[in-house]
This record gives sequence, structure tokens and C-alpha cells, in this order.
Amino acid sequence: MTSPRPVEQVLAAVDSTLDQSLERLFALLRIPSVSTDSAYAAHCVEAADWLVRDLQGLGFSAEARATGGHPAVVAKSAGGAGPHALFYGHYDVQPVDPLNLWETPPFEPRLAVAEDGSKRIVARGACDDKGQVMTFVEACRAWKAVTGSLPIGITMLIEGEEESGSKHLFDFVKANKADLAADVALVCDTGMWDKQTPAITTALRGIAVEEFKVVAANRDLHSGMYGGAAANPIHMLARAIASIHGADGRIAIPGFYDGVEDLPPDILADWKALNLTAEDYLGPIGLSQPIGEKGRLLIEMISSRPTCDINGIWGGYTGEGSKTVIPSEAWAKVTFRLVGKQDPAKVREAFRAHIRAQLPVDCRAEFFGSRGSPAIALPWDMPVLGKAREALTAEWGRKAVTIGSGGSIPIVGAFKDDLGLDSLLVGFGLEDDRVHSPNEKYDLTSFHKGIRSWVRILDAIAA
Amino acid sequence: MTSPRPVEQVLAAVDSTLDQSLERLFALLRIPSVSTDSAYAAHCVEAADWLVRDLQGLGFSAEARATGGHPAVVAKSAGGAGPHALFYGHYDVQPVDPLNLWETPPFEPRLAVAEDGSKRIVARGACDDKGQVMTFVEACRAWKAVTGSLPIGITMLIEGEEESGSKHLFDFVKANKADLAADVALVCDTGMWDKQTPAITTALRGIAVEEFKVVAANRDLHSGMYGGAAANPIHMLARAIASIHGADGRIAIPGFYDGVEDLPPDILADWKALNLTAEDYLGPIGLSQPIGEKGRLLIEMISSRPTCDINGIWGGYTGEGSKTVIPSEAWAKVTFRLVGKQDPAKVREAFRAHIRAQLPVDCRAEFFGSRGSPAIALPWDMPVLGKAREALTAEWGRKAVTIGSGGSIPIVGAFKDDLGLDSLLVGFGLEDDRVHSPNEKYDLTSFHKGIRSWVRILDAIAA
Repeated sequence: MTSPRPVEQVLAAVDSTLDQSLERLFALLRIPSVSTDSAYAAHCVEAADWLVRDLQGLGFSAEARATGGHPAVVAKSAGGAGPHALFYGHYDVQPVDPLNLWETPPFEPRLAVAEDGSKRIVARGACDDKGQVMTFVEACRAWKAVTGSLPIGITMLIEGEEESGSKHLFDFVKANKADLAADVALVCDTGMWDKQTPAITTALRGIAVEEFKVVAANRDLHSGMYGGAAANPIHMLARAIASIHGADGRIAIPGFYDGVEDLPPDILADWKALNLTAEDYLGPIGLSQPIGEKGRLLIEMISSRPTCDINGIWGGYTGEGSKTVIPSEAWAKVTFRLVGKQDPAKVREAFRAHIRAQLPVDCRAEFFGSRGSPAIALPWDMPVLGKAREALTAEWGRKAVTIGSGGSIPIVGAFKDDLGLDSLLVGFGLEDDRVHSPNEKYDLTSFHKGIRSWVRILDAIAA
Repeated sequence: MTSPRPVEQVLAAVDSTLDQSLERLFALLRIPSVSTDSAYAAHCVEAADWLVRDLQGLGFSAEARATGGHPAVVAKSAGGAGPHALFYGHYDVQPVDPLNLWETPPFEPRLAVAEDGSKRIVARGACDDKGQVMTFVEACRAWKAVTGSLPIGITMLIEGEEESGSKHLFDFVKANKADLAADVALVCDTGMWDKQTPAITTALRGIAVEEFKVVAANRDLHSGMYGGAAANPIHMLARAIASIHGADGRIAIPGFYDGVEDLPPDILADWKALNLTAEDYLGPIGLSQPIGEKGRLLIEMISSRPTCDINGIWGGYTGEGSKTVIPSEAWAKVTFRLVGKQDPAKVREAFRAHIRAQLPVDCRAEFFGSRGSPAIALPWDMPVLGKAREALTAEWGRKAVTIGSGGSIPIVGAFKDDLGLDSLLVGFGLEDDRVHSPNEKYDLTSFHKGIRSWVRILDAIAA
């Protein structure tokens, strides 16, 4: 009789202690650590402190480190003789508005049963990124509980500003190179291909964020007195926004596509084979037709092509009833997703020039660009990539795929540039997780098998 | 030695009691009677009750009458043997947002000194319409104080829903025809031609009010996951708004101009002679070029041509920082100013059809039209028109002009249709009064000479 391999014992421990793992996640989800709104700053500290205490309990040396913004949790534990890994995730969450669309309060996590009988964790941050972070933490806990140690040495970096662009983390990484030294980075903030198919993300779109306003008269005007004569900045903003995309779905800003290249034919063939249909991808959200560039695959539109979305717009009277006003200004927030070698700074300048060119003589635009980061492509020959793919395939019973992601994780670029680390991006989010939306959820299966996946990946990397 | 004519004694009384008149106006201005926001309903009642008490003190039989919405003040006093007049004004005011642009709190009236040394009353409602209403009330007070009676019998109707479309007043007028019976209506809710030149308004634009939203996905989406594929309702709303006006400044909604006629050549010639320049009209608000229909006079654009203005727009994330969201819907509020025989119901239907035609397959529009009223043209041969013009000319030392107004006073149509009354529209507002805007003001001269003007007009009508 042979004793089971350690990894099997650790997986069994994960299964038998899932309820306690869930309780810990719920405790973290109850903390409203919204990073983009300064009113929640104390809760960001609270979430960081919660993680520090939890990781200290696991035997990590852990502390909440000052960054100039919300604190970053840095925790370290020695492990086996394999490569040392830097794990990255974030404890901050998106704002919850519109609050009235939440079925239950966003910071009161609950386990709900879906129509198909499956269970899901519902709360802001359930998936992005608290649930994902805790898959890794719980995997470490299980290894420690069963074997007394970790298969490899691990440094965790769990930040509090990912949803606001990781604005202080870049300097923090630069200033703490020695402390964060590792052989590879592990990042858990991405998704599965579908409910059954695990995925490793090897390309990430970049981002450029802008806020701007169109200003006309020097004060709000009565539309009965000035309507028909005075420029209305809402109309001008609307025209400017309408001019961003052409009828072919392409972005009509001159120079925008500089640095964008088509996919290599073999990758394009692989992606065609994945056969992502509008019915599958858009059907669940109530849509039927991709709105992107004509002639492109849907999977290209969402992962390998650059985009522009207005994320918010406001101006004039927005209260109850009506007000016959022509406002003096109108506002919009916009994000660009960037790919290939697009330069965020050049995209920003091209956008500003384009918007200004749309405005009539009495209107002007003012811009408040906040941040940007270029796209990232990871090496397909990363040593740990094959190992992780095998571990994921073993856990899920289906071959793990390598995909591009539409989202941005800007710090991955800094890991390469400042720490010399390639990043393995593995996550268990699903398309219907309502990330950034009301009623965000994380399937209990994602959480449970996510923990198990990391148990296997750590084992595989150590081997 | 002849004793002075009564009117001269009354004018002298106005001059000597101006401080007390101002105190009473300030008391009324302190009541935040915003009619469009239900949170202020109790203050609307408070303003009505204040007027009732004040008018009772003048010897009017006065009461606040239920309308189904905010109460209407009805007050009556017998007078000389001339025609009986129905005076109309409103005690409700516009919302005050954006509050941060007010130099002092909107409901704490104050007397400010302008750069040219003139004094002005600053408060929400200082002009529109509390200040204007009180010019008439104070004129009546002075007549009563000096002569013990009024030159003509007067019924006052001071409503509380003008800023929200007088929505209950139409039924109220229909239900109280006998009570409101008169020979002519006097309305004080319009403006002067300029600081020196009094005006009688003989045409009023109509209005159609709509609120609508564009809906795309069934929930808010993460722009990193769905950007480039999912329809963004902010973009679609922007395109729809951009499509309302053509490059020639005309409204591009099919059928919109049905019922719109050019001015008679003689009126057009008069208006040309008034020589309203962009520099004069738009310069003070920081603009230089009229944005209306190419080939039209500025004075046509603002008074005899129909218009469309988006008064408010909102959608997506509008808080601090950024949120990478594609919202499920985006909203706008819109008003049309109507002229001639334009039918508000037909304009509304044409607008809805036009917006729907702009939207792609996955987007739909929902409309929440609230009200509309056609334009009104008053007879140039009204008996009291000549008398009022002489009275105004005597007071201001400059010939009173007859003009069209860009604004709407829908109840004037009901006075004609239900009560058989033509309306004499006289007011003392100025273009720079910031009506509906932060820091609304009413020149002390408008208030003072406005009272004196009504003293003279009542005398002239009685003669």
C-alpha cells in the first residue's frame, strides 16, 4: 500500500474545508473597499489589514505597505526548491452604482442557487478580484495545513488600486525591486474560456482613460430665451462622440490604428476554430449583433482589436421633471482598449485633436486624462506555461486554451520591465459573472476548483 | 393750485415705500418653492399661503385653492368702472442646480451692486416670477394705500406649477370659468427689449417636452470584456442626438416644420430695424455665433422659429474616477419650442419615429413625453394694447416695442380658449437676469419701475 501523493491529500483537504474557505471569503467581501471613490478609503485599509492578519495566520510574514494611495499587502513565505513566485491580485473593487439594480446589498455576500441548480457567490468583488485572490490564498493554506510548507517560495503582492489604474503601484514596484524579486509572476484576475474550459491568458489589451467636457456659454441659459441661437454643449458633445466611430465600426480618429497588426494566420485559425458566436457571447446579455469592425471575428473584436467606449456622460438637468435649460457644459468619460504597439500617449493626443476638430467656433473641449498603459503580449514559450496547462487540464478534464484578454492589467507590464518577470495569468471568472455590474457573482465551482487548480499549479511548478 | 392727479400721488407712494416693497419680496424669495421636485411641495404651499395672507392684508378676498397639484392663489378685489382684469403670474421657481455655481445661497435674497453701480436683487425667482408678480401686487398696494381702492376690478391667479408645465392649471381654469371671468388678462412673466426699452409681448412659442432613454444590453457590462462587440447606448444616444440638426442648422426630423410660416414682410422689416446683433445678444454669455438656421435673423431664431434643445443627458458612471463600464441604458431630456401651427402631438410622434430610425438592431428607445402646448399669437388690435404702450412709454421715456417671445406661457392659450380673454403680456425681465440659471437676478430698476409701470397701466386701462 502506497500513501497518496501529497497533492492528492492537499486536494482532499480543500474539499473538506470548503465551507471555512467560503466563510473567509465572505468576511473579505463584507468590506466595501471601493478604490475609485475617496469616501471608501478607510475600508480599503480595512481590507488590506484583514488580508495581512489572515496571511500572518498562515505563517506568511505579511504587512500592509504604504504606497501613497491605498496600501499594498506584501506577504512572504519560503517553500520548496523550485522557482520563487510573485503572486499578484487586488483587494479593491469597483463602485456599486446603480445600487437599485442589486437584488441584495452588494457588500452582504450570499450563496445563491442558479436556475440550473449550481451555486454562486453574489457580492461586489465576488469574482473581481477578492474571490480570485482567495482561490490562491486558500490553496496556500491547504498546502500548509497538510504538508506544513509550500511547494515553492511565494511572495504575494495584493494591491488596492487596480480598479483605479494601479496608480501608485508602479512606483511601489520600482522602489521595492529587491523585496519583490522572484522567478515568475502568477496573476489571478482573468477568466475561463467557458464554464468547462480553463484558460491561460497570454495577451492583454492596454488602456487609455480620459475625462473631458465641452464648454459653450459662460453660464446655464434658459432654452426659451437662447434656444435656437446659443450653442448647446450637449449637442456638440453628442456630435463629437458620434464622430468617433465610422459606419464600418472602425474608430475614425486619424492615426488611431498606428501600431495595430493583424493576428498571425495560425492564431487566427485557432481562434476561428473556437467558433465564438454572437448567439453564445451576446445572447446572454440580450444582444444579437457585434457592433465592432466589419469583417472581423467576434473574438478579435473583444480581445485583439482596439476599442473606444464612452463609460459615462452627463450634462444639464438630470433630476425629476423637466428644466428648460441649455447648460454651459457637458461631460463624458472615455476609455480606449489598446493592442499591439499602440502608444497610450499618442492615442490620447489623437483623440483630443479629433474631438477639438469636431467643435464649432464657440465651443471648446477640456481634457482630464488620468492614465494609460500599452498592451502586453506574453511569451508563448514561458517555462511554466506548459506546466500550468497540464495542471489545469488535469483539474478540469478539458484541455486548457491560451487566449487573449480584452481587459487590462497594467501592472503586468511593470513586472516585466522592472522585475524581469513573465506573468502566468490564470483565473476562473466567467463571462456571466457581471464583473463591474450589479449582482456580480462567482460560481462556487470557480472558487472551489480554482483553489484546487492553484494547488495543482504550485505542485507542477515545483516539480 | 390744483392737487396732483391720483396716479402721480400713487407713483410718489411707490417711490417712498420701495424699501418695504423690497422686504416683502425678500420674504417671498426666502421660500424655496421649487415645483418640479416633489421634495419641495410643502414650500410651494408655504409660498401660496404667504401670498394669500399678503393679499388679504390688501383687502383682497384671497385663498389658496386646491388644483390636484400645488395650490393656486385666487384673489379678488372690486375696483373702478373700467374693464375687469385677470392678472396671472406664478410663485413657483426653477430648481437651483448646479448649486455650487451660486455665489450666495439661492434662497437667501440679497441686494448686490453691479459693476456699473446699479443694484440688483439676487435669488432664485428674483425675476422669474416672484419679482415680476410682486411688481403688480405692489402697484395694487400703492393704489389702495393712496386712494382706498383700485382703478379697475382685479382677479389674481397666481399658480405654483408654471415651471412644470402648469399641468393642473388647465383643468382648474376650465372648472372655475365663472370665478375667473374678466374682460382682459394681464400677464407678468416676460421681458423688456433692453434695459431702456419696455416691451409688450404679442407672440409666444409653444413647447413639447420629452424624456427618453436608449436601451442596449440587459445589464451593465465590463468594457474590457464586451467593448468592441456590445452596442454602447451612450454612443447610440449621441448619434441620435447628433442627427436632430442638419449642417444648415435646421431640424432634420421629417415633418417637423409643418405649420411653420415665415414672418409677414412688414414684421420682418421691423425686426431687422431692431438690429439685434450676435455681439449684443450672445456676447454677454460668452458666445459669438448664432447656431440656428442659416439665413435667418438672430431675432427670428430666438422668437419666431422652432427649436430643439437637449436639456439634460446622463448615462453610465458619472462619479469620481473612472469605471470601465458599458451601461445598459442612457437618458436624455429634450424640449422643442414651437411656432405657428405646429402641433405638439405631431412633433412628438415625428421625433420618436426619427430617434427610433437612428438606432441599430440591438438598441431600442423608450419615451416619456410629459406635456406640450401650441404657440400663441395675440391680436395686434387688442383694445388695451395701445393704452399699455402709452403707459409704458410714459414711464420709461422710450417707445414700448411689440415683440415675439422665445419662451412659452401655455396658460395664455387656455385664457383665450376657456375664458375668452386676450392677454396683455408685460414684464420687466432682462436678458442678463440668469433666469433658470445660478445667480438669477432682477434689477432693482426693473422692480421699482415695474411697479410704477403697472400703476400707470391700471390707470390707463381705467381711463
